[in-house]
Amino acid sequence: MIKLAIDAMGGDFAPKEIVKGCNLAIAKNTDLELVLYGDEEQIKKYLISNPRISVVHSPKKIDMGEDDPIREIRRNRDTSLVMAFQAVKDKQVDGVVTAGPTQGVIVAAHLIIRRIKGMKRVALAPALPVIGGKSRLLLDVGANLELRSEHILQIAQFASIYLQETHNIKTPIVGLVNIGAEPSKGREVDQETYQILKNDPHFNFYGNVEPKELFSCPCDILVTDGFTGNMVMKTMEGTAKALGDVLKEEISSSVGGKIGYLFMRKNLRNFKNRFNPDNIGGANLFGVDGVVVKAHGSSEAFAFYNAINQAYQSVRGEIVEKMKKIISDVIVDE
Amino acid sequence: MIKLAIDAMGGDFAPKEIVKGCNLAIAKNTDLELVLYGDEEQIKKYLISNPRISVVHSPKKIDMGEDDPIREIRRNRDTSLVMAFQAVKDKQVDGVVTAGPTQGVIVAAHLIIRRIKGMKRVALAPALPVIGGKSRLLLDVGANLELRSEHILQIAQFASIYLQETHNIKTPIVGLVNIGAEPSKGREVDQETYQILKNDPHFNFYGNVEPKELFSCPCDILVTDGFTGNMVMKTMEGTAKALGDVLKEEISSSVGGKIGYLFMRKNLRNFKNRFNPDNIGGANLFGVDGVVVKAHGSSEAFAFYNAINQAYQSVRGEIVEKMKKIISDVIVDE
Repeated sequence: MIKLAIDAMGGDFAPKEIVKGCNLAIAKNTDLELVLYGDEEQIKKYLISNPRISVVHSPKKIDMGEDDPIREIRRNRDTSLVMAFQAVKDKQVDGVVTAGPTQGVIVAAHLIIRRIKGMKRVALAPALPVIGGKSRLLLDVGANLELRSEHILQIAQFASIYLQETHNIKTPIVGLVNIGAEPSKGREVDQETYQILKNDPHFNFYGNVEPKELFSCPCDILVTDGFTGNMVMKTMEGTAKALGDVLKEEISSSVGGKIGYLFMRKNLRNFKNRFNPDNIGGANLFGVDGVVVKAHGSSEAFAFYNAINQAYQSVRGEIVEKMKKIISDVIVDE
Repeated sequence: MIKLAIDAMGGDFAPKEIVKGCNLAIAKNTDLELVLYGDEEQIKKYLISNPRISVVHSPKKIDMGEDDPIREIRRNRDTSLVMAFQAVKDKQVDGVVTAGPTQGVIVAAHLIIRRIKGMKRVALAPALPVIGGKSRLLLDVGANLELRSEHILQIAQFASIYLQETHNIKTPIVGLVNIGAEPSKGREVDQETYQILKNDPHFNFYGNVEPKELFSCPCDILVTDGFTGNMVMKTMEGTAKALGDVLKEEISSSVGGKIGYLFMRKNLRNFKNRFNPDNIGGANLFGVDGVVVKAHGSSEAFAFYNAINQAYQSVRGEIVEKMKKIISDVIVDE
C-alpha cells in the first residue's frame, strides 16, 4: 500500500478540485491510500466515501506573504501544508502532494522534511510539454538561485533515477542548458559543470543544449541553476501565451480566417491543450527525504490527479532510497 | 550625408542578398552613402550603379573558428569585416553594418573600434517581435556573460537614448528581467541592479519583469546580463519553433484541419511572419565608439536593408555622442 498526504487547501481551486482529483486517484489505484489535510467540513462536501481515504482536520490555510516564507511556515504549524509535510517527516505517509505556493513548498520541505543526508541542494523539476513524442524534465527551476557544479551533478543523478524508475527509461540522456554547444561555452560554473557531468558514470551526458533546441534535442533531462531554469520556464510560458494571442488576432482579422476556424476548431483546441500545464502533471522536488510533488496553483481535478500519480510512481520506484544509495557510495568512495 | 561601411561578405547569403539590401537602402535614403567591403568582382555582379555607393576590395572573408575569435580578428586584417570596422575607427564612416558571426562582431568592435571612454561594457540589443503593437529591446543578449549592476545601468541608459533618438519615445520604460516582481527577488546582482536603476534619473524604471510578462509588459527596454538575455532570447526562438511545429502537426491531423487551412492560409502566413527575425532588423551593439549594427546571419535583402536603416537612424540620432555626454557628466559628478 502506498500512502500519500494531500494538502487539500492549497491551490486556486481548493478544496473542491483537489478533493475531486483525490477521488479520481483512489478509484484508479487500488493500492493507494490518501490522507487529506484541511477543513474537514468543506472537504467532506466533495469527498467520496472510501476506506482508503481519511481526513485530518487542519484549521488553517497557509497565506504566503512574499516577505518571509520561513517565518510563515514556522508560525503556522496548524495549516494543511505544514501538517501534510509533518506527516512525511513522521513517516506516517510516503509522500505529499500540494498545489500550494512554490516558495512555501520549498521552505516547508527544507524546514520540516529536510534534505537527504549528503544531498547538498534540492531542485524543483517540472516536465516540459511533450514535443516530438518526448517529455523532458527541466531542473532546477527555482528552488535555488545559484548552484555549483557538484550540486547540479547531484540533481542530474536524482532526475536520472526518477526517469529510470517511473518512466522506464533505462539510460536517460542529460543535457546542460547553456548559451552554446561547445564545452568552453558559458560562465565558469557552466564550464565546470560540463566537465563534471561528462565524467559521471550514473547517467548518459549529451553535452550542452542551447535553449533554442530545448524541444528538439534528444535529452530526457535538462539541468541548470535555479535562476536560469526559472527564466527559461517563464520565457516559454510568455512566448506560448504571446503566440497564442497573435494567432487568435490573425485568424479573426479576415473572413477567410474565421471560416477556416470553423473547420479546424478542434485542431486548434488540441494545439492549445498540448501546452496546457494541467495535462502535464506536477513538479517533483528532488533532494528532500521523502517524495514531494508540487502541482500547479491553477490545478483542477485532472491536473491534481496527475500530480498524485506522479507521487505514487515516485514512491513505488523508491527513488529517494535509490538516491540515498548513490550518495552513500560516493561518501564511501571519498 | 550619413556614411556607412558595409561588410558585404558576412552572412549566409553574402554577397548577393547583402548587396541587394544596400541597393534598396540607397534608393530609399538620398542622404546615405555606402562603402562596401568585400570581393569586388562578386559584389559588382549585383550592385546598382550609384555615385553614393563605392566598393573597397577586401581579398578575404572572416572564417570564425569557435576556438579563438580574438586571434582570428588579429590575424585577418584584410577581411571584409575587419576592414569595415577599421573604417569606423579611422572616422572614414559613421557606422558599420554586418551579418557576420556574432562573436566576431563583438571581438572586432572591442579590438578595432574600442569602447567609449568611461563605458564599462558593451551590450548587444536586438528588438523582440512586435506584440500588442509594441516593440521591445532586450539587452544584453550575449556580449558579456556576467554584468555588474553599474554595467546594466549604463546599457539601460544607452538603450534609452537610442529609443528616444530613433523611435521618438520620450521616456522609454525600462524593466529588469527577473524571476519575480518584488524588489527582493533574484540574485544579489539583480537586487542591487533594481536599486541602482530605480534611482537613476536618465530613464523611467518600471521594476522587475518576469519573462512570462515579456510580451505583455509596458516596457520598451528589458535589461539583464548577457547569459540570462541569451537564454531568454534562445528560449523564445525554441518555443516559437516548437509551437509552429505542433500547430502544423495538429492542423494536418484531420480533414477538417486541412480544409480550414485552405481558408486561413494567408492568416497563418502572417502569423509566421510576425515572428520572422527578417522583418525586425538587426541588433545594435551599444557601448563602442561608433554605430555598429549586427544583422541576422540568415539575412536576405529586406532584412539587411532594415539593419542599414537602423544604423542610419542611430547615426542621425547621434546616439553615441549623447551617451558620451551622459558619461562625462557622471565623471564630472564623481
